[in-house]
Amino acid sequence: MGGDFAPVNEVAGAVAAMRDRDPSSFEIVFVGRENDIKAELAKHDTKGLNYSIVNATDVVGMHDDPASVFRSRKESSLYKGIDLQAKGYVDAFMSAGNTGAVMSVATLSLGRIKGVSRPTIGSFIPTSKNGHTLVLDVGANVDSKPRFLYEFAVMGSIYTRRIRSISLPRVGLLNIGEERNKGSETVLKAHELLEESSLEFIGNVEGGDILNGHADVVVCDGFTGNIVLKFAESFLTLFKAKVRSYAERGLLNKLAVAAIRPILKRILTGLDYEEYGGVPLLGVNGVVIIGHGRNSARAMHNALLLAESVVKNKINDHIHNALNPPSLSQVSYEKS
Amino acid sequence: MGGDFAPVNEVAGAVAAMRDRDPSSFEIVFVGRENDIKAELAKHDTKGLNYSIVNATDVVGMHDDPASVFRSRKESSLYKGIDLQAKGYVDAFMSAGNTGAVMSVATLSLGRIKGVSRPTIGSFIPTSKNGHTLVLDVGANVDSKPRFLYEFAVMGSIYTRRIRSISLPRVGLLNIGEERNKGSETVLKAHELLEESSLEFIGNVEGGDILNGHADVVVCDGFTGNIVLKFAESFLTLFKAKVRSYAERGLLNKLAVAAIRPILKRILTGLDYEEYGGVPLLGVNGVVIIGHGRNSARAMHNALLLAESVVKNKINDHIHNALNPPSLSQVSYEKS
Repeated sequence: MGGDFAPVNEVAGAVAAMRDRDPSSFEIVFVGRENDIKAELAKHDTKGLNYSIVNATDVVGMHDDPASVFRSRKESSLYKGIDLQAKGYVDAFMSAGNTGAVMSVATLSLGRIKGVSRPTIGSFIPTSKNGHTLVLDVGANVDSKPRFLYEFAVMGSIYTRRIRSISLPRVGLLNIGEERNKGSETVLKAHELLEESSLEFIGNVEGGDILNGHADVVVCDGFTGNIVLKFAESFLTLFKAKVRSYAERGLLNKLAVAAIRPILKRILTGLDYEEYGGVPLLGVNGVVIIGHGRNSARAMHNALLLAESVVKNKINDHIHNALNPPSLSQVSYEKS
Repeated sequence: MGGDFAPVNEVAGAVAAMRDRDPSSFEIVFVGRENDIKAELAKHDTKGLNYSIVNATDVVGMHDDPASVFRSRKESSLYKGIDLQAKGYVDAFMSAGNTGAVMSVATLSLGRIKGVSRPTIGSFIPTSKNGHTLVLDVGANVDSKPRFLYEFAVMGSIYTRRIRSISLPRVGLLNIGEERNKGSETVLKAHELLEESSLEFIGNVEGGDILNGHADVVVCDGFTGNIVLKFAESFLTLFKAKVRSYAERGLLNKLAVAAIRPILKRILTGLDYEEYGGVPLLGVNGVVIIGHGRNSARAMHNALLLAESVVKNKINDHIHNALNPPSLSQVSYEKS
C-alpha cells in the first residue's frame, strides 16, 4: 500500500506475475486495505489464480520515521506483510513503500543471517556495455566499518552469481584513486580484507568506473552509495530539461526535437532504473524485495518474479555459508 | 607542461588570453621546457604581447606521487611555477597537470590562509536550470572534519559571490536525506555549524539535488565529492556508448543517429565540464587555478582569465576576513 500508485500497479503487476506462473507453486498474498485491493482486482481477470488477501488498515507513508514503524504501526501493511514472513506464512515480501521503514522492520522482525553485521540494499546501475553494475550499500548504513564493506562484497557476489548468472563476479572497491594506498582509513582496511578474501577482487574503482562496467559489484559505504544513486537517477532529468530548453529556443528547434524524440527514447532504453523492478535487502533472515515508489505494473511484475528467484536460489543459505566457514575442528569431526 | 597536450593548448590559450587583455596589465610567464615553448610560440602571432619564459627541464607526470614532488622535483615546471608565486614574481599560477601534485606543492610553498584548516578544490557541475553548482571538496580532503565542511562553505560562498556574481549564494550540505537528523556524525555536526553561521544555508541536499540547482554551493567531504564528480564526468561517455550501440543495430538506426547527432551536440552544450577552464584551489595563500588535463586551448584561455579575476577580486582577502572575525577587544581597540 505504500507505493505511489498503490494498489493499482501492485495488483496489476501481481496478476501478471501469477499468469506467468503455475498456481500450484506460486501464490500472492496481498496485504493492505481489503476493499481497495478487491476493487482493484475486480478490474482484472483473476480466474484460476492463486491469491489471498490479508487486511491491514494502516499505511506507512514515504515520509514517516522508519524507526517508529516497528514499535507503533503494527496495523500497517508494511509491518503485517513482513510479520507474515517472520511467522513462516510466506517466503518473501515485496514493497514499493518507505525503504527505510521496510529495512528497519525487516531487520527487527526477521533478524540478520548469522555472520552479517549489517543488512544492505544494493542498486543496479546500467553500464556502457549494456550490462549493470550492482552498487552496494546505497543507503542502509551511514557509517560503514571495513568489515561491513567486506560483507557487502560477499553478499553482492553471491547475488550476482546466483541471480544474474555471472560465474565469477568482479568486485571493485569504490575509491578516489586506483592506487592501493588511496582513500580513507575505512577504505584502506576494507581493501586489505577484500584482497585476503576468495572473492574476485579487482581493486579500487573510481567514480568514473561505475558506468564502464569493469566491475560487476561495486562496494561502498551507504552514504557515498546513496548519493551516487540519487545523483545517477537525476541525470535523465537534467538531460530532459536540456532537451526542453533547446526546443523552446525557436520553431525549428521545436521541430527538430519532435523529430528526434522517438529515436532518443529508444537510445535511452535500459537507462531507466526500473528494469529489475526491485532490489533485495541482503543479509536479513528472509527475502525482502524493495521496489521504487513509482514502480510501474511491469516493474512490480519483475520484482515479484525476482523474489521467487531469490527464494529458489537459496541466496540466504549461500550467504550464511560464506560468512560462517566451518572451523577445522568441525571439519575433522564430520570426517570421522 | 603537465597537461595532456602540453605545451600546445597552453601556449594557444595563453596567446588568446593576452590578445584579450592590455599588455601593460596582463603578463604571462611560461614555465617549462624553453625550446618546446618557443617552438610552439613561433606558430602564433605574438607581436606586442607581454610574456616571458622561465626554463624548467623536468615535467611532473599525471601518475607521479604528489607527495614527493615538493621534496624532489624542484626542476619541474610545476614546482618552479608555484615557487615563482611564493617568491612574489607572479600573482597567480595555472596548471593542467597533476592535480594532487599542484595541491600539495601549492599548500607547502604558499601556505594556507590564516583560519583555513584545509585548502579545497571545487568543481562546477551544470544544472538543469542552465546554471552551475559549485561542489566542494572534490578530492583534496579524504577525511573531512565538520569544521572543514564549514570552511568549504565559507570559501565556496565567497568565490560564488565575487566571481560568479550571485549575491547571496545558497549553501547546501550533501546528505542522504533532507531531514536534519540524517547522516554521519561528521555531517550532523557540520549541519549545526552551518546553521549557526551567517551563510545562506538551505539545509541538507540529496544526491539528486546537485543537478537541479537548488543550491549554488554544495559542500561535502572530498571522498564523496571526488566520486560524484568522476561519476558525473563519465555520464556523457555512457550516453555516447548508448548512441553508438543504437547506431550499430542496422542501417536505419545508423542514418537516424547521423541525422540527430548535430542536434544532440547542440542540446548537450554546456554539459561538458570545461567551460570554466579550471577551478581554484581555495584556501592557499596565493591564486592557483587547476585545469583539466584534456583542457582545450579555449579552456586554457578561460582559466587564465579566471586567474586574473580571482586576483582582482581579492578572493583571498575576503576568505581571510570571513574566517578571522575581529574579536570584541580588537574592535574596541580600533575604535578608541
